[in-house]
Amino acid sequence: MKHTISVLVDNQFGVLARVSGMFSARGYNIISLCVGETESQAISRMTVTVRGDDSALAQIIRQLNKLVDVIAVEDLTSTSFVERELVMIKVRADSKRRSEVIQVSNIFRARVVDLDAETMTVEVTGSGDKVTACIEMMRPFGIAELVRTGVIAISRAASAGNGQETD
Amino acid sequence: MKHTISVLVDNQFGVLARVSGMFSARGYNIISLCVGETESQAISRMTVTVRGDDSALAQIIRQLNKLVDVIAVEDLTSTSFVERELVMIKVRADSKRRSEVIQVSNIFRARVVDLDAETMTVEVTGSGDKVTACIEMMRPFGIAELVRTGVIAISRAASAGNGQETD
Repeated sequence: MKHTISVLVDNQFGVLARVSGMFSARGYNIISLCVGETESQAISRMTVTVRGDDSALAQIIRQLNKLVDVIAVEDLTSTSFVERELVMIKVRADSKRRSEVIQVSNIFRARVVDLDAETMTVEVTGSGDKVTACIEMMRPFGIAELVRTGVIAISRAASAGNGQETD
Repeated sequence: MKHTISVLVDNQFGVLARVSGMFSARGYNIISLCVGETESQAISRMTVTVRGDDSALAQIIRQLNKLVDVIAVEDLTSTSFVERELVMIKVRADSKRRSEVIQVSNIFRARVVDLDAETMTVEVTGSGDKVTACIEMMRPFGIAELVRTGVIAISRAASAGNGQETD
């Protein structure tokens, strides 16, 4: 089963290697990982998506909690959260195919961020599934380059269950 | 100086810990890191932003290139590239302040992705600087939660220098 785990850590060097090492030591492959600063520069948030055995994961979370630099660990999987990912896709498209790429972009609310005679680069945000669907629709044009941020997640509004996803 | 480094790696467990360990062993703190699959599921791309001494970095890049699971390493800093980051910000805003938050969101082309009686969650994409500017404008409302993906980067269109950033 796929799990989305949020880890708040002190913004110290070495923390990232220790946390990611904790997963790999147990044979967990990390599907995606994002690390960025939070509202406080001293604290970073790691969002990790992994796939694997649920019982081993519970153990990893317990051990993460014991690391000095780890402030909090939460497995969001069983909670209500909004998940988002950003992808940039550089597609092969000369002037004749440009309108087709724009058509697909509009459907996925993607934005063109770069352009030359032979290629177009679009950015798209959404859930992992939406982003994957957009990539699949772009694939026939020919993908020259592709970069995904990996998934970030934020818990649903305070009154859980009443939050409305508006996009 | 801040560097943006793109590392293509085999999608194997342990690679992430080895690569991030390479930076921390030399006292480099990672500002942000994104790992996601590329157009091929077997290959992941890591985008790392670090700050530190340029000469030490050249050495780290040489050593990264020697790792078996590392396919390619590129320091994008001196090249022409498009940089993007995604952030979700949960802001305290009851019904009276909602329109103010929407106003700020519109200026940064942010989208409201979740809402309840006391909070609004918006997503915004852009360069690291744009995203930081948006966070600063949201701060006075009160930030309840904030998640950044960290920066991803894609090289400019083939004919370097002719690419037009459209957004």
